[in-house]
Amino acid sequence: MSADLRTVKLCLLGFGAVARGFCDLLERQQDALGRKHGLRVLITGAGTRRGSLLAPEGVTAGAALAAAPKGAPLPEPPRPPRDLLTASGADVLVELTVMEEDYAPAATGHIETAFDLGMDVVTANKGPIAWNWRRIAAKAAATGRRIRFESTVMDGLPVFSLLEFTLVDCRLLGFDAVFNSTTNFIIDAMAHGAPFDTALKHTQDEGFAEADPSHDIDGWDAACKAAALANVAMDAGITPADVEKQSLRDVPLERIRRAYAEGKRLRLVTSVWRDGGVDDDGTADMDGGADGAAELDIDHPLAPLGEESLGVVLHTDLMGDVVVAELGALVPQTAYGVYADLLHLCRTT
Amino acid sequence: MSADLRTVKLCLLGFGAVARGFCDLLERQQDALGRKHGLRVLITGAGTRRGSLLAPEGVTAGAALAAAPKGAPLPEPPRPPRDLLTASGADVLVELTVMEEDYAPAATGHIETAFDLGMDVVTANKGPIAWNWRRIAAKAAATGRRIRFESTVMDGLPVFSLLEFTLVDCRLLGFDAVFNSTTNFIIDAMAHGAPFDTALKHTQDEGFAEADPSHDIDGWDAACKAAALANVAMDAGITPADVEKQSLRDVPLERIRRAYAEGKRLRLVTSVWRDGGVDDDGTADMDGGADGAAELDIDHPLAPLGEESLGVVLHTDLMGDVVVAELGALVPQTAYGVYADLLHLCRTT
Repeated sequence: MSADLRTVKLCLLGFGAVARGFCDLLERQQDALGRKHGLRVLITGAGTRRGSLLAPEGVTAGAALAAAPKGAPLPEPPRPPRDLLTASGADVLVELTVMEEDYAPAATGHIETAFDLGMDVVTANKGPIAWNWRRIAAKAAATGRRIRFESTVMDGLPVFSLLEFTLVDCRLLGFDAVFNSTTNFIIDAMAHGAPFDTALKHTQDEGFAEADPSHDIDGWDAACKAAALANVAMDAGITPADVEKQSLRDVPLERIRRAYAEGKRLRLVTSVWRDGGVDDDGTADMDGGADGAAELDIDHPLAPLGEESLGVVLHTDLMGDVVVAELGALVPQTAYGVYADLLHLCRTT
Repeated sequence: MSADLRTVKLCLLGFGAVARGFCDLLERQQDALGRKHGLRVLITGAGTRRGSLLAPEGVTAGAALAAAPKGAPLPEPPRPPRDLLTASGADVLVELTVMEEDYAPAATGHIETAFDLGMDVVTANKGPIAWNWRRIAAKAAATGRRIRFESTVMDGLPVFSLLEFTLVDCRLLGFDAVFNSTTNFIIDAMAHGAPFDTALKHTQDEGFAEADPSHDIDGWDAACKAAALANVAMDAGITPADVEKQSLRDVPLERIRRAYAEGKRLRLVTSVWRDGGVDDDGTADMDGGADGAAELDIDHPLAPLGEESLGVVLHTDLMGDVVVAELGALVPQTAYGVYADLLHLCRTT
């Protein structure tokens, strides 16, 4: 590697599938990072509850991956996150811990600690943005640090960066979104004859859903994403608790099958509007109903978003209605969002 | 206005609906331009074949609009574009002339003249990008100038800026797009019973289509947009003549009605792939057919794009398939794209 590359040191908290995908991408992009961006990205710390890795001189992402083969913990004993962050001397905290139950206290603490230590932050953990955005934004302003979080809402699909970098001067008036792919998958499987429990088990076997699926099924995942997007892009000042949720458990199989028989798709649509408050009833604004589940016909832009697809209709003042969607919302896409966020931070330093 | 604003002087070539919409937007955004971007945007020249306006000291966009009430020519006699550009002393040429028949010689000349005069360029005229991209890019590089052209492809929808600013490091492998809203409108009207000629006349009466509709109907508009996107984002080095076109005149009414009766939508899909050459047969890559017109079912992301909607599926290496679409492809959106391009130029000066 050329000596004139700028070195960027990362400390990773969380080392699951997304962190591994991110490291894999960093390793594959190593040449491009140097050639196109003048960057050498090194890992100086990584930690989970099961283990850690501390390397203040920095190791490549590939070396970090090799230190913890899939399924194995990181090689050193666990360290408290604050100690690890401090000792890592990193420039950027990459916060990839799993979302906590409520209020995201630990992940929010990691982010605030990083700011205090002079680090910028990239996170794919929606908890802090959904529950504590104003507090985090205030802390970032007070410490002069920055945070990016593209992968919190749509697994790497540009939504925050779309609004920030391309829809300049547009005011986001509201949005309608399909935010959760696990429920998409279950709904489509039910439409094709599988009972709820069978469809759910299939998503778990395939690794789409968590072992405890209630986060997806009962609307909390979508509510967190809605709160994160509304908080950042509309200064909503809400939490996921403020978003009216509907559980997929309460949607009768008959309703799903009838929609498909009529050539429609049933989707869980989450809508937030500036003036109309916050609810989880896409139908309220679009179809006159009041249900989280909405029957969408072929002319509705969210109808095609089944299985692992996600998307949002952004209602703006200057550019009208803009749709952005991804047709594969999987780990590589989430990892890409983290990678893109890191580049945004580095390009504007 | 505060004296510490940076003044940006524009010379407009073309003063039709898009130019007027752009001036209207500039006028409405005057406060935001100053407050958020530190800019004062003034018009120092405007010209059409019927008239001109020369104001080297600069007038507001509102004053420029007032000088030529809708339907009336600009108040001064026409000037040759080179003379007007030179005398205007503008920082940026805003090229909004109507697309020429072939090869876009006049508009390309305007752009090259502007580069020679030290101006950057924003254009909504797809001709130069579709026909002469490599020549223009080489001239920009040689003169150290910049050009932006978001509104050439999807009426202001972020496509070029999406790729440039948000999908960083992604390689565009190919795309499938619904590029032309006039044909969408005609197809949907035919599906509901209108004969082709009646549907076409309606689009003309509503101002969607040109008086000579062959540009839309015979696939040239879509081919120009495909060439522009492929040239810029994939370095394709093609012209619209290289894109296989199908005329809507050759799509039987029966086929459209059958698609709708089967719960599908008929769309003219233009596809370009890096490895598979260039054609206008979305079905070839997606459905195994070989037709510009494609029957799309409810699970296809381009199916909902009827009437004035446009959209594209971008196939990328790092982020998979990303869909971006606009649900109203109208003059205000086109004008917004020009406005956003201007801001991109000013923000990175």
